[in-house]
Order: sequence, then structure tokens, then C-alpha cells
Amino acid sequence: MDAYTAIIGKRDRREYTSQPIPDEVRHRILQAGRMAGSSSNNQLGRLIVLNDRGALEALAPAGRGTATMLKAPLSVAIVTQGGSAFDVGRIAQNMMVAAWADSVASCPQGVQDQEMARKALGLPNDYSVGMCLAFGYPDESVPKRESRPRLPFDEVVHWGRW
Amino acid sequence: MDAYTAIIGKRDRREYTSQPIPDEVRHRILQAGRMAGSSSNNQLGRLIVLNDRGALEALAPAGRGTATMLKAPLSVAIVTQGGSAFDVGRIAQNMMVAAWADSVASCPQGVQDQEMARKALGLPNDYSVGMCLAFGYPDESVPKRESRPRLPFDEVVHWGRW
Repeated sequence: MDAYTAIIGKRDRREYTSQPIPDEVRHRILQAGRMAGSSSNNQLGRLIVLNDRGALEALAPAGRGTATMLKAPLSVAIVTQGGSAFDVGRIAQNMMVAAWADSVASCPQGVQDQEMARKALGLPNDYSVGMCLAFGYPDESVPKRESRPRLPFDEVVHWGRW
Repeated sequence: MDAYTAIIGKRDRREYTSQPIPDEVRHRILQAGRMAGSSSNNQLGRLIVLNDRGALEALAPAGRGTATMLKAPLSVAIVTQGGSAFDVGRIAQNMMVAAWADSVASCPQGVQDQEMARKALGLPNDYSVGMCLAFGYPDESVPKRESRPRLPFDEVVHWGRW
């Protein structure tokens, strides 16, 4: 898919079919995360593919909106050794746009209880979960939520100054 | 450009030619920022195109690495009304990948002195500059810095748990 089309068309979505994500699609999603730039190229982010059911079930209660992870065909935790949330956002967006270019929908899910998350994943003490991402093919049988559309261009973009 | 190719090939770069960014390319970059998803779709991010020389020169000293903005053919501030740095990262990555799909290089530049930045841009008190982005066609006459390459895939990606 064309880059601009993928970027513009990506919407966060939480309803997926049970169709598995093929290995090559998963590989592209992980590569997209790996290749994201970081502050001073510090590369503090790591990716944990949550394909261990026990670890995933121990992790999910550490976040308020993490129920989606338990049902998604693919979930990934972005963990970081003190890296910025801005850089975690760059990693996440790369992964979600790459997924959408392969028709895979996604949604970020934050973790609040870092102590529980560290224990669930066996993380070193100086790591935290920056964000979790759920991925899956969109379940078109579930009606889309009535969501607020994006603000108009002229409301988002200012010229020169505020 | 194919989405995956754009995502994987994008590198942060600070050396640009003086070639202006065409209006339609600038429009795609701004649209990419506007369409980024946000936490609970709160859409707290706004974009300020820094095409007012006075405002840009007043803003640049508010950050330590913002000299690039002054030379770049296009600079944009992502400002936010209390939105998360994670969401600013999503906006920024969308814009930078969209730019790269049009062969435009880019680099994020953080602002440390928010009071100075607010004054430079005439921002409301409850807004801050999440990140600035510089854009330009890469200057191939400047040798690329010896930069640390991305970590190997198997060092970035863990399976199941840490």
C-alpha cells in the first residue's frame, strides 16, 4: 500500500477476527518498530511479542484498557529502559501503519501498574512498559463505534504562530 | 512510495538543501499529522507551520538542538493542550514517514524552555510545544555522520517475556 494512503487511512480499532497474522506480516510489523528513530539514536526501546499466554494474562490486569490484548491474534509490548514516551510513540506508529499497509488493524493500550507489568514479563527493574499494541484483521461484523471524526484541517493547522 | 519501504528507510537527518518544499508535499505532511490517532480520540495536538521568520527565530533558542529549524525549508511545531508525549510521537512519525515517501528528510527537535516557546508562538497558557520537526530535501554533499546502526532484530525483539 502507498505510504500516504496507509498513514491517512489508519484508524485505531479494537475488534478483530480470529484470523492469525501470517509470520511475514508479523515480521514486517516488528521490523517497522525496530527501525523507528530515537532521541540521539539511543535505541532504548525493545519489543516483546506476547505469545506466551501466561505472561499475557498476567500483564493484562496492569492496564485499564488492556482487555483487547487477550482477544487479539497478536499483541506486542513496547518496553523501554528510560526512553521517552515520544520515542515509544514513534515506534508504535511505525508498527501500526506498517500493519495497516497489510490490512491489519491495531490499537494502543496503556499500562498503569508498572510493578505488575514488570513481574508479568520478567522485566529488569530499570525497564517499563511504554505501551502495548493489539493487532488483528478488522472484524467487519462489529458495527464501528460512533466516533468523533478528525477535526477540520484549518482547526488543526496554524500558520506562523498561534 | 510503498508504506513499508518508507517506514523502514526513514532516517533522521539534519542537512537539507535550500530547495523549497512544494505546497502539495507540505499539505500531505500536515494531513499525515492531523490524521494520527490519539488517546480516546482526544485530538489535543495542533500544528504550527513556522513560516513566520520572527516567530521561528524567537522559538529556536527555547531548545538546545533547534538550530536546524532555522535553516530548514520547512519547520513545524507540534503543540498540545496537555496531550501525551506518546501521542505527539504518533503525530511526528506520521508526518516524517509521509515526508520521506515524498523524498523529504526530517528530524525532531525538542524544546526545553516552554515559557519562551509559548511567548514566541503566542500559545495559550495551557499549551506546550511537544516537539518541533524540521523538513528538507537531503543535502547529499554533506557526508552522513558515522551513526550507530540499528540494533540487530534478535536484540530488539523478545518472545513471550523478557
